[in-house]
Amino acid sequence: MNYLTLDRNTLLALEQQLTQTYNHFKQKKLQLNMARGKPCPEQLDLSSGLLEGLQGDYQAEDGTDCRNYGGVAGLPEARRLFAELLEVEPDEIIVHGNSSLALMHDLIARALLLGVEEGTPPWSRQPVKFLCPSPGYDRHFAICEFYNIKMIPVPMREDGPDLDLIEKLVATDELIKGIWCIPKYSNPTGITFSDTVVSRLAAMKTKARDFRIFWDNAYAWHDLTDEPDQLKNILTACKEADYPDRVYIFSSTSKITYAGAGLAMVASSKKNIDRLTKQMSIQTIGPNKLNQLAHVRFFKNAHNLRLHMQKQAALIRPKFQLVFDLLDAELGDKGIATWSRPRGGYFISLNTLPGCAKEVVRRAAEAGVVLTNAGATFPYGLDPEDQNIRIAPTYPPLAELKTALELFTVCVQLVSIEKILQDRKLLTDNFYQKQAQIG
Amino acid sequence: MNYLTLDRNTLLALEQQLTQTYNHFKQKKLQLNMARGKPCPEQLDLSSGLLEGLQGDYQAEDGTDCRNYGGVAGLPEARRLFAELLEVEPDEIIVHGNSSLALMHDLIARALLLGVEEGTPPWSRQPVKFLCPSPGYDRHFAICEFYNIKMIPVPMREDGPDLDLIEKLVATDELIKGIWCIPKYSNPTGITFSDTVVSRLAAMKTKARDFRIFWDNAYAWHDLTDEPDQLKNILTACKEADYPDRVYIFSSTSKITYAGAGLAMVASSKKNIDRLTKQMSIQTIGPNKLNQLAHVRFFKNAHNLRLHMQKQAALIRPKFQLVFDLLDAELGDKGIATWSRPRGGYFISLNTLPGCAKEVVRRAAEAGVVLTNAGATFPYGLDPEDQNIRIAPTYPPLAELKTALELFTVCVQLVSIEKILQDRKLLTDNFYQKQAQIG
Repeated sequence: MNYLTLDRNTLLALEQQLTQTYNHFKQKKLQLNMARGKPCPEQLDLSSGLLEGLQGDYQAEDGTDCRNYGGVAGLPEARRLFAELLEVEPDEIIVHGNSSLALMHDLIARALLLGVEEGTPPWSRQPVKFLCPSPGYDRHFAICEFYNIKMIPVPMREDGPDLDLIEKLVATDELIKGIWCIPKYSNPTGITFSDTVVSRLAAMKTKARDFRIFWDNAYAWHDLTDEPDQLKNILTACKEADYPDRVYIFSSTSKITYAGAGLAMVASSKKNIDRLTKQMSIQTIGPNKLNQLAHVRFFKNAHNLRLHMQKQAALIRPKFQLVFDLLDAELGDKGIATWSRPRGGYFISLNTLPGCAKEVVRRAAEAGVVLTNAGATFPYGLDPEDQNIRIAPTYPPLAELKTALELFTVCVQLVSIEKILQDRKLLTDNFYQKQAQIG
Repeated sequence: MNYLTLDRNTLLALEQQLTQTYNHFKQKKLQLNMARGKPCPEQLDLSSGLLEGLQGDYQAEDGTDCRNYGGVAGLPEARRLFAELLEVEPDEIIVHGNSSLALMHDLIARALLLGVEEGTPPWSRQPVKFLCPSPGYDRHFAICEFYNIKMIPVPMREDGPDLDLIEKLVATDELIKGIWCIPKYSNPTGITFSDTVVSRLAAMKTKARDFRIFWDNAYAWHDLTDEPDQLKNILTACKEADYPDRVYIFSSTSKITYAGAGLAMVASSKKNIDRLTKQMSIQTIGPNKLNQLAHVRFFKNAHNLRLHMQKQAALIRPKFQLVFDLLDAELGDKGIATWSRPRGGYFISLNTLPGCAKEVVRRAAEAGVVLTNAGATFPYGLDPEDQNIRIAPTYPPLAELKTALELFTVCVQLVSIEKILQDRKLLTDNFYQKQAQIG
């Protein structure tokens, strides 16, 4: 039953029926929040004993007392563990505090003030621009907006951002200094960059000598299926393309152990990492090494971390499945929405008919279900078609998620029908207006 | 036996004797490091069980799951605890990660890029200057040097920095945007700012509307005697002087619990804190709240933290006493050095005869005892008189400290005698030169 082809009366009847259902939801006075990609308590429980596991032994493998000062680049054993996981060398990674966002933010602040390499000027001397594959991650865009970096949206495809457009832009505009990428199980669309996309990003000619890829590999190990997406190693690709310093790779254990108390890391060429270590030693005497020690002791090796992620997947896979099932059942044949079916990560990205997203989110909030702000996934919060909505299914318990999604699908239908009716009215009005003018 | 008044032969005999002792030390192949103000293992042991004390209960008083995302300004109970200790209101403080240096660094980076308040330009638009009471903390100076902020040294007195000079400078130079202060048990001189100094800093007229005091109260609770220094509340003083937004107060538990894994905090007017909280929410989703919860549970209240500091004092007081005793015994009556006798903090500041500090530090290092680089306590590492040496007695065990100080006093004597002899020779040479010219 495609809503776009139904006649006015059928749509009006449906609208009435859906309004009743909507009001019914409203009376329940729901208070559900699905705004952010937060792990649920059961996911956090998987890391039980992480801190307590130190058991009074605070010595790192090289004898370092992790309670004391020092070690800006992170504990050697922590660097080794995450180097293996990110497929880089231990001297190509810094393991830091609890926030990869802070690593990204700070890198950009330093780039603005000092430039990113010897012999290139501070970015802030000119009106810098960043490429922003969209929909993307609102917190990336917020950093750019905060520092007045002009954002250029780039469409996201099934295999990554539109490289034809990107190659054209970076080849001619020296003010384009960087690009945000979430290359695996991208936020929010869930796609993974193809090998070709990775290779082209690594090898493309950029007018700016100091162009940088901000590679936020936040979901590197966050598979939901037994056939995980494979991501080509961009640092290797950059080296092969003779741009070894082009990429900063970020990741964290925020969605592996504790969202607020995990470890964050940045990987890059040894040259970049050495420079960054020196710069960071101006900022801090060192990260919280006790937390690094606790993490290394908890996982012991990369294999165990991957096993841990299978437990994570087992907890959140049913939630993704529930969303898929409900969307299929309620919106599947109606022609008013499309959505992603990611094989990993934290989000489902749904597109409504153009011009409906904001109103759907508003309507859901009015009935007690808070979603990510419509538009948030685009630079400056401006979704040009007003149609993208990010669904974050991990946090709510299944029963709540079900209720929230049921309400959500009602909102999508209701707003879509109103939009269809309104659009038709505009068409008809225009028709009669033109008739009158001709007459 | 004042060395300055001894005759040449006595000095030569002393020099020979001291050289023998020095060579004796050299044969011991010492490997002692007194470069930084680090807590010793026994001090760290005082916080045993801090992390383990969470015992699987990660809920803050308001129900927040501290393992998850959120709460940029810190846990309410952590803000309350440190607000009480720093004598500010809970909404005038942010409790953050493990590094107060990072809070200072980041504030300056943001000030350079965005300015410090609505309606004032980014500091980086002009060649900014900072006042640097000296001797002071090398890591403060390193931030300025890193960001190309011109440092103006200001002499330190017994009651704080030279306010006559400061008032004159800030009244006329709009490019002076800030001053570094360690107001209590200052690093390295150990003095505490007098009430008058605090009041004058708070009330002085500055040409720059956006002038800021960086008040690094690192040793706020680090008393070594039963008659602790009292520091006037600068935030209150600023409010009373009608410059409520002038000061940022920093502190941390780095030298209370764990040097590398404590909590850092910044306090200021509510307006500044609100602005900073918003800015920090661009940088991070939140600090490590588990560590904040662990700290609050460990101390429970301000009183217990003060009791804890008495235990700290009991551990390090004998080390300070040993240094005082050895300096008194070996250098007390020789007229070649003066030193501080702080009632708290982490350092003893020693002044040699002019032109001796670098050589003393070099000589000690050659015999296996690493001290803080001479000059480090001055902007750009340039001690104009080359006479200040920072002694950091907390880390080494008493026996090692004794050996290190014995060697140190030998080096001071040896280098001083060489200097005295050299200066006299210059005088004599000059005398004969002049005689020859006249003749």
